[in-house]
Amino acid sequence: MTFNSFEDYFKKNRKKHLQQLFEFLKIPSISSLSEHKKDMETCALWLKDHLEQLKIENVSIDHTAGHPVVYGEWLHAEGKPTVLFYGHYDVQPVDPLHLWESEPFKPEIRDDKLYARGASDDKGQVFMQLKVIEALFAILGTLPVNVKFLYEGEEEIGSPHLPSYVEENKEKLSADFILISDTSMYAPGKPAICYGLRGLAGVQIDVLGAKGDLHSGLYGGGVQNAIHALVELLASFRNDEGVIQVEGFYDDVLPLSEEERKAYASLPFDEEALKKEIGVKELFGEKGYSYIERTWARPTLEINGITGGFTGEGIKTVLPNEASVKITCRLVPNQDPDKIVALLRQHIEKHTPKGVTITVTEFDKGAPYITPFDHPLIQTASHSYEKVYKVPTAFTRGGGSIPIVASFDEILNIPVVLMGFGLDTENFHAPNEHFHLANFDKGLLVLTDFLCEVSNLQL
Amino acid sequence: MTFNSFEDYFKKNRKKHLQQLFEFLKIPSISSLSEHKKDMETCALWLKDHLEQLKIENVSIDHTAGHPVVYGEWLHAEGKPTVLFYGHYDVQPVDPLHLWESEPFKPEIRDDKLYARGASDDKGQVFMQLKVIEALFAILGTLPVNVKFLYEGEEEIGSPHLPSYVEENKEKLSADFILISDTSMYAPGKPAICYGLRGLAGVQIDVLGAKGDLHSGLYGGGVQNAIHALVELLASFRNDEGVIQVEGFYDDVLPLSEEERKAYASLPFDEEALKKEIGVKELFGEKGYSYIERTWARPTLEINGITGGFTGEGIKTVLPNEASVKITCRLVPNQDPDKIVALLRQHIEKHTPKGVTITVTEFDKGAPYITPFDHPLIQTASHSYEKVYKVPTAFTRGGGSIPIVASFDEILNIPVVLMGFGLDTENFHAPNEHFHLANFDKGLLVLTDFLCEVSNLQL
Repeated sequence: MTFNSFEDYFKKNRKKHLQQLFEFLKIPSISSLSEHKKDMETCALWLKDHLEQLKIENVSIDHTAGHPVVYGEWLHAEGKPTVLFYGHYDVQPVDPLHLWESEPFKPEIRDDKLYARGASDDKGQVFMQLKVIEALFAILGTLPVNVKFLYEGEEEIGSPHLPSYVEENKEKLSADFILISDTSMYAPGKPAICYGLRGLAGVQIDVLGAKGDLHSGLYGGGVQNAIHALVELLASFRNDEGVIQVEGFYDDVLPLSEEERKAYASLPFDEEALKKEIGVKELFGEKGYSYIERTWARPTLEINGITGGFTGEGIKTVLPNEASVKITCRLVPNQDPDKIVALLRQHIEKHTPKGVTITVTEFDKGAPYITPFDHPLIQTASHSYEKVYKVPTAFTRGGGSIPIVASFDEILNIPVVLMGFGLDTENFHAPNEHFHLANFDKGLLVLTDFLCEVSNLQL
Repeated sequence: MTFNSFEDYFKKNRKKHLQQLFEFLKIPSISSLSEHKKDMETCALWLKDHLEQLKIENVSIDHTAGHPVVYGEWLHAEGKPTVLFYGHYDVQPVDPLHLWESEPFKPEIRDDKLYARGASDDKGQVFMQLKVIEALFAILGTLPVNVKFLYEGEEEIGSPHLPSYVEENKEKLSADFILISDTSMYAPGKPAICYGLRGLAGVQIDVLGAKGDLHSGLYGGGVQNAIHALVELLASFRNDEGVIQVEGFYDDVLPLSEEERKAYASLPFDEEALKKEIGVKELFGEKGYSYIERTWARPTLEINGITGGFTGEGIKTVLPNEASVKITCRLVPNQDPDKIVALLRQHIEKHTPKGVTITVTEFDKGAPYITPFDHPLIQTASHSYEKVYKVPTAFTRGGGSIPIVASFDEILNIPVVLMGFGLDTENFHAPNEHFHLANFDKGLLVLTDFLCEVSNLQL
């Protein structure tokens, strides 16, 4: 079977495939909002049906304490490696809705880019895994490797129930490695293998002052303002250069090796283009580290949202009694999320302003992950990329988190191969998320080639 | 005519009066929200009709560039002083609505307190002025003084159009003094004459970073976070003791005289009761000043509302590109609102964090006001209070702003007499606003007596 015949197959079926993907994207599977609970089930069912149509066996919707996991397998490639595919069918919320140029759950192709929530993170890439299986069956009549599928619905909320699911299904999920398509390419036309990911830890801080909002004329000057108190606390977290001031925060950070710093520095990086693309006049962050180093290998503490007092039209001269903030940290090897949350709690306690009470609520956590990039699977993947994209593959780290990666590492103790086809400019968690269809087309060939090559590896 | 006959009149008509007041309170005349524009007109019409029923003449609804002014007059007390009554028929917004125990625009009496938005600020007190006129006509068959009425609909948004209205109608509004009922008593049972008011100046600050929200994993550490930038700026406005750090902010503050400080210190003040009432463990503010001094005679800089990023249920790991805050300052004599806003702008410019653009929008301003308390009108008012309440009247300052007071002072150049019947605990700008009906009853007698006494003054 030739590379061309797969290319031909994907070309001939492109229209049909995109129609199928549209159906998948239309389901508003927002895991963080309880009103979408039914949509999550609909989406899991769509995946189950699709896997069954592909002749995948033992397909099941496995219920957890949260949103369900979809499992399936095909294990008839005797003596060949077993690949565990992982992806997620849940998506981020869509607000602010007014900034979307087309509706988030009405997929639309403009300029060969597919616009929809989940187009690239991660439904589009999950769908590619399915279409690769379809093509292999169609062209080879069989699969070159054994496959298992594990698609979850809680990635965007930190995969709270997947670790226990994986723990309980260790046997069923056993494989030679895990293949995840949820990371980004280095740049348009420049593929990347991601060998490290940042973790996540965060808290919501609620500040309470008086028992209700007060008149700022009558009480102003006499009573603590909950927003002022929160601002004071928040200002203590970071200095004006972006360096985090929480005691012990950087203690466990694995320093960048000289080799890594050189490798990163050699990658093409167009700062002006980046600034233009995201619409900023200047980049910002910790001194002494390049932009790449800061976003790949340095931890962050980010305010994700803040609210308090009167935020409507016009003016209301209130002295607000409540204020609330959400903070998340991106963690790097070898920071421990539990320890970081404990440090945050200590910091908050030490810096609690006068006249208010503070409540801290923890968000779900994810550990950072790193794997050596000289592993044969990583090398094989790199070659598959190069065959299709015709340029050297970049070895990178991901600034984002795939919470389950660290859990797979810990529980199943097998390598994770991250072969992603997104682009960082595709607004994954923001309005107007989209997916470049050129990478959809090429990615299908890369993954197909990779599975064929893996067939010959002794793992 | 005896004092008793007025008391009798108010008692016999109490039920009817309260029913009329309920109708007035039911109109949701929120001046700051454009969707209530029609309600503002309905409310103005209600006042016009009511004044006409009271035999007030030349009643008119005078349109301005904003909400209308209601005017009326009765000028047949030859040789007697002319009183210009002022009040406002607009009210504050009602959110957060879920904290109201009864609906804000469905008045309800519980425990002899009238609950409704506007019950004490200021519809209830405007209504008292009307009922005093009614009683005087009913008992005396005439009025002991000449009266003019000026009721505006923009007090809660800073009276943006009233100064020009007063300027244009200087002749029509000419009077010997202005009588305003929109201030508070000192304490339950302890009346007060307010001889000074704080002014108001404020800005909205909008922070803009990237052109859209960014993924905190992909960009976190590399780009400025709009909320962090705003927090950094806001933290620079005030130190942790509540002292405002804006350069020059205190320069023009009229220092408290030793006399004033002694007078304030002699007033009964139950700190424990106050803390319990508003639900705080400790009071808070500028060192070296008592609570009374801080809230009456010291300026403030208060954050009224803040918003940015994701504030919904759960977690969204976004790097927000926009954040916004509303800030207002309570000003004291002799601070100038225009100068204060200029200082705020200078401060913002000097402290603008890296990587963001800041837009400043000014709110409407009001100058602070102060008047000597040995004026015969103030003394007469004090006596009327004492006759009804049987305790010495306290001479106080108001922490809140009645923006038009300074304008009256400036344009009409006549004394302002502030005879208020509210209590600071009545949640004027907060959920569950209410008015103690005991002060409604007593206040009617005080105002009636005052107008009869003023009849004998040579002004």
